[in-house]
Amino acid sequence: MKQLDLMKELHVSSGKKIVMLVFDGLGGLPGPGGKTELQTARTPNLDKLCKDSIVGLSTPISPGITPGSGPGHLGLFGYDPLEYQIGRGVLEALGIGLVLRPTCLAARGNFCTIDPATGVITDRRAGRIPTEKCAELVDKLSSINIEGVDITIRPVKDYRFALILDAEGLEEGLTETDPLRTGEKPLPVEALNPAAKKSADYLNRWLAEAFEILKDERPANACTLRGIAKDPGMPSYAEVYGLKSCAIATYPMYKGLSRLVGMDVLDAGDTTATEIATLKSNWDRYDFFFFHIKKTDSAGEDGNFDAKVKVIEEVDAVIPEILSLKPDVLVITGDHSTPAALKSHSWHELPILLYAKNIRIDPVEAFDEISCMQGGLGHIRHVDIMPLAMAHADRLNKYGA
Amino acid sequence: MKQLDLMKELHVSSGKKIVMLVFDGLGGLPGPGGKTELQTARTPNLDKLCKDSIVGLSTPISPGITPGSGPGHLGLFGYDPLEYQIGRGVLEALGIGLVLRPTCLAARGNFCTIDPATGVITDRRAGRIPTEKCAELVDKLSSINIEGVDITIRPVKDYRFALILDAEGLEEGLTETDPLRTGEKPLPVEALNPAAKKSADYLNRWLAEAFEILKDERPANACTLRGIAKDPGMPSYAEVYGLKSCAIATYPMYKGLSRLVGMDVLDAGDTTATEIATLKSNWDRYDFFFFHIKKTDSAGEDGNFDAKVKVIEEVDAVIPEILSLKPDVLVITGDHSTPAALKSHSWHELPILLYAKNIRIDPVEAFDEISCMQGGLGHIRHVDIMPLAMAHADRLNKYGA
Repeated sequence: MKQLDLMKELHVSSGKKIVMLVFDGLGGLPGPGGKTELQTARTPNLDKLCKDSIVGLSTPISPGITPGSGPGHLGLFGYDPLEYQIGRGVLEALGIGLVLRPTCLAARGNFCTIDPATGVITDRRAGRIPTEKCAELVDKLSSINIEGVDITIRPVKDYRFALILDAEGLEEGLTETDPLRTGEKPLPVEALNPAAKKSADYLNRWLAEAFEILKDERPANACTLRGIAKDPGMPSYAEVYGLKSCAIATYPMYKGLSRLVGMDVLDAGDTTATEIATLKSNWDRYDFFFFHIKKTDSAGEDGNFDAKVKVIEEVDAVIPEILSLKPDVLVITGDHSTPAALKSHSWHELPILLYAKNIRIDPVEAFDEISCMQGGLGHIRHVDIMPLAMAHADRLNKYGA
Repeated sequence: MKQLDLMKELHVSSGKKIVMLVFDGLGGLPGPGGKTELQTARTPNLDKLCKDSIVGLSTPISPGITPGSGPGHLGLFGYDPLEYQIGRGVLEALGIGLVLRPTCLAARGNFCTIDPATGVITDRRAGRIPTEKCAELVDKLSSINIEGVDITIRPVKDYRFALILDAEGLEEGLTETDPLRTGEKPLPVEALNPAAKKSADYLNRWLAEAFEILKDERPANACTLRGIAKDPGMPSYAEVYGLKSCAIATYPMYKGLSRLVGMDVLDAGDTTATEIATLKSNWDRYDFFFFHIKKTDSAGEDGNFDAKVKVIEEVDAVIPEILSLKPDVLVITGDHSTPAALKSHSWHELPILLYAKNIRIDPVEAFDEISCMQGGLGHIRHVDIMPLAMAHADRLNKYGA
């Protein structure tokens, strides 16, 4: 029996509340001073909480695997990221706040440059045109109509755009049109199974019209489509856990990921302060609160060690406000590591803290990557977190007699 | 390759002996003094042994999952509890010492009260009639005969009884007859697959006769059947591990679970002293000894912290007697946690101790839930224990060339 099925079978109501505080990209590596971002930050509230908690390290997917934002969060939500895969097109759409219906097919579009004489691609990213130019071209492409299909196209960033087709009978199983190297022509969309044939036809018709509209533009006189996919149709939090759940996040991507598992997405403003206010004002309405902090990741991606330290300190300052609500279970961790030293996501484990009734308090007294190596939770995986949170919220029945 | 297949393929004889000492419900949580039951108990022998052992923490099934007795023990025996599921009817029968042949179908029966006028259930447990009354009714029901079927019915406790049908061609895949709420009529048994049709017919005939016999009784004037199942047919210890194995236990349930994996069940009396005597007198006859202590769990279920401490201390006192037999491998752990603080089974990890030649002795010097967080075995799962025991008994060949 798989874990999600086990959760579906065993969950019960208890009225107890779970808060999952996720610092995006929390995990770090030693900076110039020889300490990680978490070790460097002054975090009196996290350290105090740590003394009354059980901690450990959590691996997002499996050892050595660096997750994108999608798999990192799916793991935290308890969905095996190797089983539930979110197509690039879907993530691109979620990332700019588009809502996907189950009938939608989403693609990531890239503007590119082709040689008008031979039709081969000479630049797969059209010289990385600015976002303004991308928006202008997208505006032109929005004139394309295909009968019976509701088409949405939006600029994303630089040469990237999101394309969504909505119609009955659209199916996955479609090849990408980017040949992945210059000197070759864009490929047609091909259906990998009979059910996807209609989708391929629509997309090829759209591409033909797009090429016609773009042909006199420079440098972006063509485009390719990648990661053509549907919402993976994951069972909802209500179904799996019996939880009335909500997401408190400031960035579209995380709101979108939460929607994929059926969370209500609250209007949480764009600062930690507005997020805290949202948590407080919605406290009585939900059982589960996904509370997302974006800027630890942004600072890590920028390679800005000090900025990441500062974000951690800022969030540390609001921990007492979360505790004042008396959550029955509080989990604090990250979706993946983004060490400032690497300026990118990484595969390193995440410190995790579990604060709840009926924990076995361990001797660890500081919440950081090194101290948590000795934590009582040991080394777990992201998918283990939700079952532990559910157990400590008295929300799981016994398995077997 | 699955673990059991790996064991089947790799096991060899070595003449070395393994003792698995299982304290039922061993794991605990801090009591009034801030320490767990194991931390509170004076266990000089366990602590001395710990200094020469490697320890860790073991999860019965997966993080957050609270196991029943069946799944907890299957894990210890090395059988994935999510793959091998033991029906409630089977456990009920095993729990009162009934032996199930492969042709048997077992159900848990509940006496209930129905409204004679409408036939709807007004009390699913018939006012929790005393066991004596249950025995009296079971005696009446034992008059039911179905040609070609060997029927066994026994009282269990209060309103509960065990029903076993034995005939050729009985199959699983049968619905329960308890509607799980009052105000509805008992349901018929339905076959969920064609092979189970004959079984459904027999059970419905039995129920019709039972209702006729019970109709003038009060308050138990009807009954329902739940968890209708067969012995799951697990491969035996001999087949999987090549071990000549026995169970030394005082309670029927654990004898029954041992029988499911083909262990010989020894007559072990009903005290730890008689169990030790049984171990000694059978030492030369077996390779593997499952030695079960029940009363840690009973005390935990009663919420009696001091009683659980006392049982641990009593068993600690006989550790030298076990060691005097010079087992090649001694494993000490529990099937699941039963913290007195919770008065129930729980999901918490179990301290585990492995004493054998060729272990790497870790620095942990006390056998309890908190000390074992730092143990050299780390965090393992119950299904990992048997392969480790087999390896340290020199009973496993190399895998692959």
